[in-house]
Amino acid sequence: MKAAVLHNFDETLSGADFVRYEDVPDPRIGKPTDVIVRIGGAGVCRTDLHIVEGIWRSKVDVALPYIMGHENAGWVEEIGSGVEGVRVGDPVICHPLVTSGHCLACRRGDDMHAIDSKFPGINTNGGYAEYLLTGERSLIKLPKSLAPKAVAPYTDAGLTAYRAAKKASRHLLPGEYVVVIGAGGLGHIGIQVLKALCAAEIIVLDRSAMALDLARECGAHHTVRGGPGELDEVMKLTKGNGAEAVIDFVGEGDAVAQGLAFTRNGGYYYIVGYGGKIDLPTIDMITSEKTIVGNLVGTYPELVELMALADRGLVKLATQEYRLSQANQALHDLHHGRIKGRAVLIP
Amino acid sequence: MKAAVLHNFDETLSGADFVRYEDVPDPRIGKPTDVIVRIGGAGVCRTDLHIVEGIWRSKVDVALPYIMGHENAGWVEEIGSGVEGVRVGDPVICHPLVTSGHCLACRRGDDMHAIDSKFPGINTNGGYAEYLLTGERSLIKLPKSLAPKAVAPYTDAGLTAYRAAKKASRHLLPGEYVVVIGAGGLGHIGIQVLKALCAAEIIVLDRSAMALDLARECGAHHTVRGGPGELDEVMKLTKGNGAEAVIDFVGEGDAVAQGLAFTRNGGYYYIVGYGGKIDLPTIDMITSEKTIVGNLVGTYPELVELMALADRGLVKLATQEYRLSQANQALHDLHHGRIKGRAVLIP
Amino acid sequence: MKAAVLHNFDETLSGADFVRYEDVPDPRIGKPTDVIVRIGGAGVCRTDLHIVEGIWRSKVDVALPYIMGHENAGWVEEIGSGVEGVRVGDPVICHPLVTSGHCLACRRGDDMHAIDSKFPGINTNGGYAEYLLTGERSLIKLPKSLAPKAVAPYTDAGLTAYRAAKKASRHLLPGEYVVVIGAGGLGHIGIQVLKALCAAEIIVLDRSAMALDLARECGAHHTVRGGPGELDEVMKLTKGNGAEAVIDFVGEGDAVAQGLAFTRNGGYYYIVGYGGKIDLPTIDMITSEKTIVGNLVGTYPELVELMALADRGLVKLATQEYRLSQANQALHDLHHGRIKGRAVLIP
Amino acid sequence: MKAAVLHNFDETLSGADFVRYEDVPDPRIGKPTDVIVRIGGAGVCRTDLHIVEGIWRSKVDVALPYIMGHENAGWVEEIGSGVEGVRVGDPVICHPLVTSGHCLACRRGDDMHAIDSKFPGINTNGGYAEYLLTGERSLIKLPKSLAPKAVAPYTDAGLTAYRAAKKASRHLLPGEYVVVIGAGGLGHIGIQVLKALCAAEIIVLDRSAMALDLARECGAHHTVRGGPGELDEVMKLTKGNGAEAVIDFVGEGDAVAQGLAFTRNGGYYYIVGYGGKIDLPTIDMITSEKTIVGNLVGTYPELVELMALADRGLVKLATQEYRLSQANQALHDLHHGRIKGRAVLIP
Repeated sequence: MKAAVLHNFDETLSGADFVRYEDVPDPRIGKPTDVIVRIGGAGVCRTDLHIVEGIWRSKVDVALPYIMGHENAGWVEEIGSGVEGVRVGDPVICHPLVTSGHCLACRRGDDMHAIDSKFPGINTNGGYAEYLLTGERSLIKLPKSLAPKAVAPYTDAGLTAYRAAKKASRHLLPGEYVVVIGAGGLGHIGIQVLKALCAAEIIVLDRSAMALDLARECGAHHTVRGGPGELDEVMKLTKGNGAEAVIDFVGEGDAVAQGLAFTRNGGYYYIVGYGGKIDLPTIDMITSEKTIVGNLVGTYPELVELMALADRGLVKLATQEYRLSQANQALHDLHHGRIKGRAVLIP
Repeated sequence: MKAAVLHNFDETLSGADFVRYEDVPDPRIGKPTDVIVRIGGAGVCRTDLHIVEGIWRSKVDVALPYIMGHENAGWVEEIGSGVEGVRVGDPVICHPLVTSGHCLACRRGDDMHAIDSKFPGINTNGGYAEYLLTGERSLIKLPKSLAPKAVAPYTDAGLTAYRAAKKASRHLLPGEYVVVIGAGGLGHIGIQVLKALCAAEIIVLDRSAMALDLARECGAHHTVRGGPGELDEVMKLTKGNGAEAVIDFVGEGDAVAQGLAFTRNGGYYYIVGYGGKIDLPTIDMITSEKTIVGNLVGTYPELVELMALADRGLVKLATQEYRLSQANQALHDLHHGRIKGRAVLIP
Repeated sequence: MKAAVLHNFDETLSGADFVRYEDVPDPRIGKPTDVIVRIGGAGVCRTDLHIVEGIWRSKVDVALPYIMGHENAGWVEEIGSGVEGVRVGDPVICHPLVTSGHCLACRRGDDMHAIDSKFPGINTNGGYAEYLLTGERSLIKLPKSLAPKAVAPYTDAGLTAYRAAKKASRHLLPGEYVVVIGAGGLGHIGIQVLKALCAAEIIVLDRSAMALDLARECGAHHTVRGGPGELDEVMKLTKGNGAEAVIDFVGEGDAVAQGLAFTRNGGYYYIVGYGGKIDLPTIDMITSEKTIVGNLVGTYPELVELMALADRGLVKLATQEYRLSQANQALHDLHHGRIKGRAVLIP
Repeated sequence: MKAAVLHNFDETLSGADFVRYEDVPDPRIGKPTDVIVRIGGAGVCRTDLHIVEGIWRSKVDVALPYIMGHENAGWVEEIGSGVEGVRVGDPVICHPLVTSGHCLACRRGDDMHAIDSKFPGINTNGGYAEYLLTGERSLIKLPKSLAPKAVAPYTDAGLTAYRAAKKASRHLLPGEYVVVIGAGGLGHIGIQVLKALCAAEIIVLDRSAMALDLARECGAHHTVRGGPGELDEVMKLTKGNGAEAVIDFVGEGDAVAQGLAFTRNGGYYYIVGYGGKIDLPTIDMITSEKTIVGNLVGTYPELVELMALADRGLVKLATQEYRLSQANQALHDLHHGRIKGRAVLIP
């Protein structure tokens, strides 16, 4: 099959070609629960850029060359002998993690913390390719309203934004505020999820006017242009108290310190983006009684919930399509902030 | 009245006398809801050392000279015209915050985050004295089983430990683990609260053998002597996964980094002690999906809950009594780790 | 002042005049926290009909003659010596319960379960009058966007619907269903609150076509006309499983049995309306693991939350105005189902 | 193999022999995930008496003759081709439900509400036999501290008591009360679980002095002999308010009405036992704002949690052993209240 393969890290992202479009062997069914999916679309994620940079080397075991792509949807191509839940030809979206379902975390519904799992595109071959090897437990059948290439980015960008926004929505009450930092691929979904799941007023902060336009279309009640006056503006909008929840889709540069500053005493700072540092005196956590919440993608049931929102039109995903052979173009466009919403590679 | 008054900061805690035992004017009833309490005992807290060091100057408005002491219990001496809930002579313990009860936080039961409050001993005169000015809403009548001087430290050390341990107990399940860092004035209460409120296995870490003895008396299932092998030992006790909850009563030095390392993926790190820094890459919060929880004392109803535990003997407080005139001795003993449990000043 | 006074019970509601419009003494400030409100509007509630029927005689202590009216809003007319939170002339809405704030329930934010409270219009004189005696802790200042007579019914009809819908919204996930039984004075608000606080699909059941029209305007996704086929229709809409939550604003006749039948295994049946009976074998609760939840108005902070929704236009109240002297007309119109939304009496 | 087989219902439980001890065909592996367990012990449950009475006929599909026994533990005898989690010879305890793990309820950890499941001993052959057919997902490996015959009743009696007590423990605070109705096979475990998981005061009600002795051994703080004065006694113990939680392990006769009467306003009544009726006016649910919670066994992870408690000695099970051939004796002893704790059949 054809695939866009990563052969070398590029720590400064200065090269022209991050991946090589080439022929590789087709994946094969091994275990009875294995499933091969013909890719309809594979989302391009900032994490892919971080992988190219080599940031993930110390976090996961992965040997080059390999195929990135952890946001995948398509059609079932082939199934293992024990698969009961899907049939060849079914349109499906792939939960990013492949699990056996036996460990206690899975038994509690918390599959993201499975003891034993594979994460295609992160620690094994992913979906920048014509076919993907995954497992039965990862697949959700798509309703007719949703085409694979239109929903692929929900599996990671969408799901991560959904989970963080859902966590916040569980405690956000009418009359309260939530600040969303970054209205890009994840942020613009997070805003819609917040709008669907709670009645807090949504304040969106971004340095890009284009992103703030998208934020307003997605339902932001207030937008703040990133820059020197941003803290004052957020404080003014929140009557001097800060927001009960802050969801930080950036997580680098001064976003973290600002995100914590935007958070009201007793409030929650959800960290989703990464690349930067959390750096604060413990006394500040004590006197403010804030909570800092890490967020790692989302569970299979949460992806089902997100598909329910998408099916009813409560969440829409802005995508920009590229051919699989244009993977480098897509990665560069993402790197240089030229994508509105999410890039999707189509084989 | 007599009081132990703070006249100067001492950033290195190198002086002989931190406070001066002297005559000051008696407090007076101002508002209809004011109450004056004759002090039966005032706890001596590490925060008092931090105040002497000047750490709190930038956090709260306080002008020297003033009287420290935020852990107070005694007897009602005089009441304002509108006070209905207590009578002169009642033995009482004082919730550390004085609030009006009008703001939305108070109306939700979250009085620690009142918009408008006083914190005697922190931002106004406290209980290192014969009498204390407080408010009706701060007082809990004591049952006959509990003497003021024996319970005073519950109001802050006890309540803070209770709140953090209670938060953890809400999610700790049988078969899970909790690590307590530091078995001193707060920690030894936290251990007992955990024991009373959940069935997780309790692992206690401290550098002092005396503290670990106390931890075992309080119900610790496992103790770990602080030092180079502590991480390995905690990992071994938790079957390689780390603990679902870590409560850090130290919060300085390497306790923070170690505390986060002890925390299982998806788990909670409760920060109670302070003085140090939280310093970690955002990516570590993402891949681990940990949560960092700040803790600020506790609410009035939580102090009522803690008194119920004390009344039934489920929580016991180790105290060491000093005369009010010996306040400097008590502070020095605390500073040099010579107190088992909690020092209490008695006028 | 003028008031509409209840002198006699009428168990069959067959009389022409339930109340008598007459002169009564003005209320007077007694305690320092008392407040007298000049009534801008008083809502007319089905509970008032139940009071006339005498249903409440065994539930609360009340001696005739007295003044009904527990949904009140207006302007502060006079304040007691200790009142700090409102000034004469302030437009206010009245939380229905008058509490001292001292008991543990109040301290936990659960003021509806205060040990000691008054409920004007239920167990003491209410707002079918020119003036109402209430307490400082019951008052919420209104924003300019909201006129007293337009919001009075929020204090009970609105607040009760809000609390039940909020409880349900805490567990309702995208892809799940909620059935609302009854789209009258409470139901039409409940629908809007559900729409604002969660993304479940809302199915509304009512016997009246007019009520179902209102339900659709309020955001119902599906409407079902009450009658023989209603169970089949609800089961079909919920894919054969029933709804994860059912909110029953009727609570009499066959609504209860049907409401429980609409509830999915593991789901929640919220009972709000009353007059009928719950009658089922315990084995049905075991095999289905359903939960039956009673609902009693709502807390002060919940009324603040509801006002935030109203202020932003997320909840709208349909009202029909009557002069206070027309109280009997309003009660009869309610009794005979001739009111769309809620009747309000204006002095 | 040998088994104790149910051939006929006996609605009045008046016959001598409820089941027939006889030879039946051995179970066989069908699906790749099937497992055959050699029974070490099978608990005898009041539900078995209810099955004999025919109460369950309308609730589940079951054709006579069949084998009862839904509380099973033993050793793995044979495994299907796809089984990875256990090996032949492993000592195991069997979660009572056999599920595929594919439905959304299972994916959320709520396996008791699986769309598609088998319940051996209820709707398919159970463990009153030498061998049992179950599935890989139902098995938990036992630690060396726990012998199969000693723990079998945990799978239903224990698990059901655990789940109800755990639900209550999530909201019970120090200073609050829980009433346990019935200190038999389930109740005596419920008491120990409450003791392990919360610090509420435990009041146990039973008509049998022997049961109240067992209750005290299990950790009850107060015991009340069932009879005319029971309501007064419970009210006195709870300072006139009733208990924040009531767990009713009886669920028939006047237990339900009394259980609701014992429940404090705003409190929770957990119904576990069955046979009787819930019968109350809806207005009583409104004015009291009580919640009635149905309870159906427990999840696989909850059985793991319970085994953790048992392994640490925090929960102990009183059992009485019978040979499998003495099944009728055991059922009759249960019927006539002659068993302390739980009967277990041993092949």
